[in-house]
Amino acid sequence: MDIQQLVQELKTENKSKIVMLVADGLGGLPIEVGGPTELEAAKTPNLDALAKHGVQGLMNPIAPGITPGSGPGHLGLFGYEPVKYLIGRGALEATGVGFKLGPKDVAVRCNFCTLDAAGNITDRRAGRIASEESAPLAIKLREVKIPGVEIFVEPVKEHRFVVIFRGEGLAGSVADTDPQKTGVPPLDPVAHDEHSKRTAEIAKQFVAQAQKLLIGQPKANGLTMRGFSAAPVIPSYEEVYGLKAAAIAVYPMYKGLAQLVGMEVIGQPTTLSEEIDVLEKAWKDYDFFFVHFKYTDSRGEDGNFPEKVRMIEQFDAIVPRVMALKPMVLIVTGDHSTPARLASHSWHPVPTLLVSETCRPDGLTAFNEKAALQGGLGQFLAVYLMPLALAHAERLGKFGA
Amino acid sequence: MDIQQLVQELKTENKSKIVMLVADGLGGLPIEVGGPTELEAAKTPNLDALAKHGVQGLMNPIAPGITPGSGPGHLGLFGYEPVKYLIGRGALEATGVGFKLGPKDVAVRCNFCTLDAAGNITDRRAGRIASEESAPLAIKLREVKIPGVEIFVEPVKEHRFVVIFRGEGLAGSVADTDPQKTGVPPLDPVAHDEHSKRTAEIAKQFVAQAQKLLIGQPKANGLTMRGFSAAPVIPSYEEVYGLKAAAIAVYPMYKGLAQLVGMEVIGQPTTLSEEIDVLEKAWKDYDFFFVHFKYTDSRGEDGNFPEKVRMIEQFDAIVPRVMALKPMVLIVTGDHSTPARLASHSWHPVPTLLVSETCRPDGLTAFNEKAALQGGLGQFLAVYLMPLALAHAERLGKFGA
Repeated sequence: MDIQQLVQELKTENKSKIVMLVADGLGGLPIEVGGPTELEAAKTPNLDALAKHGVQGLMNPIAPGITPGSGPGHLGLFGYEPVKYLIGRGALEATGVGFKLGPKDVAVRCNFCTLDAAGNITDRRAGRIASEESAPLAIKLREVKIPGVEIFVEPVKEHRFVVIFRGEGLAGSVADTDPQKTGVPPLDPVAHDEHSKRTAEIAKQFVAQAQKLLIGQPKANGLTMRGFSAAPVIPSYEEVYGLKAAAIAVYPMYKGLAQLVGMEVIGQPTTLSEEIDVLEKAWKDYDFFFVHFKYTDSRGEDGNFPEKVRMIEQFDAIVPRVMALKPMVLIVTGDHSTPARLASHSWHPVPTLLVSETCRPDGLTAFNEKAALQGGLGQFLAVYLMPLALAHAERLGKFGA
Repeated sequence: MDIQQLVQELKTENKSKIVMLVADGLGGLPIEVGGPTELEAAKTPNLDALAKHGVQGLMNPIAPGITPGSGPGHLGLFGYEPVKYLIGRGALEATGVGFKLGPKDVAVRCNFCTLDAAGNITDRRAGRIASEESAPLAIKLREVKIPGVEIFVEPVKEHRFVVIFRGEGLAGSVADTDPQKTGVPPLDPVAHDEHSKRTAEIAKQFVAQAQKLLIGQPKANGLTMRGFSAAPVIPSYEEVYGLKAAAIAVYPMYKGLAQLVGMEVIGQPTTLSEEIDVLEKAWKDYDFFFVHFKYTDSRGEDGNFPEKVRMIEQFDAIVPRVMALKPMVLIVTGDHSTPARLASHSWHPVPTLLVSETCRPDGLTAFNEKAALQGGLGQFLAVYLMPLALAHAERLGKFGA
């Protein structure tokens, strides 16, 4: 059964508001045997108070055992089957720098590399050139002009940048040009299918012009291309759920992911508190709000348990401002777990709390991994979170008479 | 994986008896913050005693967040993927009045309407004509004769009735004739595909003859047709599970749904106690018994918490009579939740109890939503209930060597 398709058929509209607070990488692990997880260690009086009125569970973003990247993690939260809606690597890189991909776009991850006089690669990452050096070079490449195609070049970080070709008749099935070894020249971009021939031809022209612009550069005098990909075709929140949705995030990646599902990115917040300012101001204008908090994941990735605990406490502190707006449904969750113990994303299910007046009480008085294990939502897949939110918002009709 | 297909391959036969007691709309919600649900408030000594020997869980009839109608709710309980086996609205209406649809039938929901002298609709529901007035008119329409097709007309309620065409080469893909507005005449029935052309032609003839029979009626002098649908093709209980199944119900809708999956409707009970009389009498003749109790849902739909509690207590009271028959497997469940708080069907999962000698004890001593949350069945989809019942009835072989 395609649950999202069923939801699309059953959706109804009303004036209710739904807020999804995402603490990135929320789930954790004890750092020592017998100890608490980050969320268990954190003092979260506001979330714990909500636990009494809400219903908890442990959410698997993709499937048990599968560790999600940020792209699939968020698509799952947003209710899109992450294995069905694949985001190509070029598209994800473009999304990650906040580039809004359109239907005529093919995005490509590029690396600066170092070439010798014979045109052979001597360093596949241009000596991991610093961002301050590489960004102006990437911007210089905007001088490349190819008739019939619009070209965008965006710096990413160190040796990485992203190129977007926009035009008619482009497709993303083109082989990488990185030969994955030194001592040989970059490969030519080769189309895997008929539809992608024009893209390959344009990529070849791009490389030729770019090389000329890079002549004389000591490190970054060449480039390789990887992960050619068209924008994923994803039905919008409006189309699927009938929700006018807003995304509030600090980092470009999450704004980009929200845009892929048709959310409108609002505000220019730089802190969580500013994100809530944006939420308050836009409250009347949208049905659904995705609010993204990055630093729980960042400190988890750093392997810094006490700092992740502190970030969770910061996150908890803003909850009363959100509740003061009286959303009909509040969801608190993460896109995956990032245990400080592992210093990386993990497959562990994510403690998730849904609060609305129509929750069936599960008797819990705290929000954390151990509590969620006893929660009324049980263990569930991320794609069921939006159907549940819509049900509690009275936005889903009955299936069958 | 199609679990039902797997079960069909693994089924074996023996002399065991399985009883499925369905308290319609069983699941509930607290009516006040911190209070009990209906099932938690009810005194259910018999069900609680069974809880000690059985295993509980929370069942999702379709999927988390999805509120089922009676049709999909029961199909799910019976083990049929509700989204795969869709029951068209005409078919459900016919089923609801207890009409047994066959493979050559197309059923149509009809509304009496009021037409002016020019043939335009002035009231789409014939002034919501009383059932006492409309039923004789529906029966009068049985006079319509069309060569090569058998026609059945059944009154439903107020302005509604149902027409069944039975014949060769009929299909259900015909557009509604209700224009959804007044001031215009009813639309002609138009076939959406080649297979349905004959149905559309017959429907047109039916309308023409019916209009003549209705001439002079003050309110109901016309009709519109909606939800043309053939009987759903559903494999029978015998075929899928190897079970000779009986249905015991008071209301036509549930008898009809049971008939759709090949159960034999037995008895003419008018109360729960009479339903158990029927069960006792037929005990030797069937392998599986579906016993339907309506009033838990009715009082939930009324928003009457104390009366729903009382209905649950009535339901509990008949349990000893059922257990005295010594079924190898007893299931107690509902087709969906109907919290009095919401006065409607809801998406909340349904507390479900399975009792047999081979249950692995889950340590529970009461049967209700809170207990079921801790139960050995966990949270599960309705389509797994019949496989579990068959397993405990020792009616499923091993999968693979």
